Amino acid sequence: MNHHRQILNKGSLSVFLTLAGLFLSVQPLSRAGAQEVLPKKVDEPADNKLTEAKVLLGKTLFFDPRLSKDGTISCNSCHNVMAGGEDNRPFSAGVGAQLGGRSAPTVWNAALMSVQFWDGRASTLEDQAKGPLINPVEMAMPDHKAVMDRLAQIPGYQPLFEKAFGKKEVWTIDHLAKAIASFERTLLTPHSRFDDYLAGKKKALTVEELKGYELVKTTGCLGCHSGSNFAGPKMPTGAGFYMKFPTIPGSEYDSKYDLLKDTGRYNVTKSDADKNMWRVPTWRNIALTAPYFHNGSVPTLEEAVKVMGKTQLNKDLTDEEVKTIVAFLKTLTGVRPVLTIPLLPPTEGKYFKI
Amino acid sequence: MNHHRQILNKGSLSVFLTLAGLFLSVQPLSRAGAQEVLPKKVDEPADNKLTEAKVLLGKTLFFDPRLSKDGTISCNSCHNVMAGGEDNRPFSAGVGAQLGGRSAPTVWNAALMSVQFWDGRASTLEDQAKGPLINPVEMAMPDHKAVMDRLAQIPGYQPLFEKAFGKKEVWTIDHLAKAIASFERTLLTPHSRFDDYLAGKKKALTVEELKGYELVKTTGCLGCHSGSNFAGPKMPTGAGFYMKFPTIPGSEYDSKYDLLKDTGRYNVTKSDADKNMWRVPTWRNIALTAPYFHNGSVPTLEEAVKVMGKTQLNKDLTDEEVKTIVAFLKTLTGVRPVLTIPLLPPTEGKYFKI
Repeated sequence: MNHHRQILNKGSLSVFLTLAGLFLSVQPLSRAGAQEVLPKKVDEPADNKLTEAKVLLGKTLFFDPRLSKDGTISCNSCHNVMAGGEDNRPFSAGVGAQLGGRSAPTVWNAALMSVQFWDGRASTLEDQAKGPLINPVEMAMPDHKAVMDRLAQIPGYQPLFEKAFGKKEVWTIDHLAKAIASFERTLLTPHSRFDDYLAGKKKALTVEELKGYELVKTTGCLGCHSGSNFAGPKMPTGAGFYMKFPTIPGSEYDSKYDLLKDTGRYNVTKSDADKNMWRVPTWRNIALTAPYFHNGSVPTLEEAVKVMGKTQLNKDLTDEEVKTIVAFLKTLTGVRPVLTIPLLPPTEGKYFKI
Repeated sequence: MNHHRQILNKGSLSVFLTLAGLFLSVQPLSRAGAQEVLPKKVDEPADNKLTEAKVLLGKTLFFDPRLSKDGTISCNSCHNVMAGGEDNRPFSAGVGAQLGGRSAPTVWNAALMSVQFWDGRASTLEDQAKGPLINPVEMAMPDHKAVMDRLAQIPGYQPLFEKAFGKKEVWTIDHLAKAIASFERTLLTPHSRFDDYLAGKKKALTVEELKGYELVKTTGCLGCHSGSNFAGPKMPTGAGFYMKFPTIPGSEYDSKYDLLKDTGRYNVTKSDADKNMWRVPTWRNIALTAPYFHNGSVPTLEEAVKVMGKTQLNKDLTDEEVKTIVAFLKTLTGVRPVLTIPLLPPTEGKYFKI
């Protein structure tokens, strides 16, 4: 455990805590029963109250490929809510089949994360939603104004925006971002078998799965993968819970899976202390989100557990231990809400060249 | 009208009918009230009875991008049921952002068509469903066996196939095709304002729209765009209702919209009589499916009407006539069923390289 370094960033302020310091601020991590069920609701920011109208608009935008340069890529293309909230690819394919540089994080329960993106470069879901739209290898719009100009050509969006935000002269990218974030705040997956277990249904987990739960505690995995989302302690919005990966460099996995090439949060802060630091990802629905890690280099959950054991805790987990931990991890697949397919507002009798 | 040539093909049998002959076999086309409402159900073939289990499996397959070579393209990518049943692009983008050679026809009410594809090269929805999977510029799978091999790696498909077809040793492409076709048979859009009008709600259409309805009768448009789907008379499955486009070559539009380059059904039969013959497309939801024609070259419905008037009926429609006809065509947008988003069966903890 003394290999761990926790860095909590908020804006340019970096607070460095030793693990001892962290223990003062969060629950003891290995205490049985400290784990919490996944919340069924999340708090929204004061300036973006959750309303049905915003969620409907957000869902519609989330599925609309016209938000991309050539009209082929929607948010859902890479963050597929018909699947594990991502695309089960090492790197997502954007406009023109260009590949991104990191594996798409799941949108399920993203609302529970205190920062967004692998490197925490967005503090909120609202901020995050603006990124891919203008990323040249993702949705590739030239700028946010071009996105809103295009939406202005689609008459059916007008009433959707009005219901969500009242009458306005011009809709801005912030309205779009607030709507998408509102939709995403509804994308929670409660009622996994593990949650049922925590809620008192002791038979919800098998003996092996319970053994796996004990193992992730005793092995030290919950040192980082704590909290209801198994992604670290509850942090203020914008303050990320980051971890170095690999914490212990030098294993065979560094080169096998090219773990060191992408320096993670360092790309955001340019601070040496942030080299190879990453937002601790959630374990929720992890069985649905292969391949694993920021570069999607690891094809199976078994191998991912093995890699984590070695690179983060310097432990050579046995095949039996790995199997048991994976059995537990599979109990974290939650119940996805039943969503209806949105009807995208048409441009009646008209094609706008994209 | 004497410029019209109707060719009805079934397999290698071609029946040539003069327009006079056609008049003997179908309803007089300009008689008011001859138009029928869109059916709320369609007949399914005897060897593929419609069941809920097949529809659920078909819907799941329809949205599953793992049916494409690199896991990025699903049936819905090009035949988007969140929109007009297609992608509002001249040519669809397949795997690797490759462009197809024709504009994707709508999947809405495709079950009412007696042949599938622009050139009628598939007799049934079942046949059609197999095509794009192995088209190298669409879903680009090497062959149908590869599709089924991939599905066999996804355990959650097993119970879906079993519920649809009973226990089997091996699932074949025909099971997949039957399921997708079953789903597509539910994709009807009844209750357009025009249907409401036909059903007796005389106020469902405005004065202008009614004038447009009269105009499509008197102008001759319904000569081809007859029937409840405005795509020709009811034909036996596999017998297409084709029309030459342009019927009257030589207008400015031939070169402006490159109308003659693709020779349509000729590519299927290699019969000179089939040069530039096309399946008469539906008018249903036409306001949702810009851009228009087989090559998606015409960006607006107004222009499409103008082109049709000239190339098919040798009439120079005035702007006022065009506007009135378009007003009528917009009344053919139906009510799309409320679909729930399918949950794609996962490969738990596993990524299969695609």
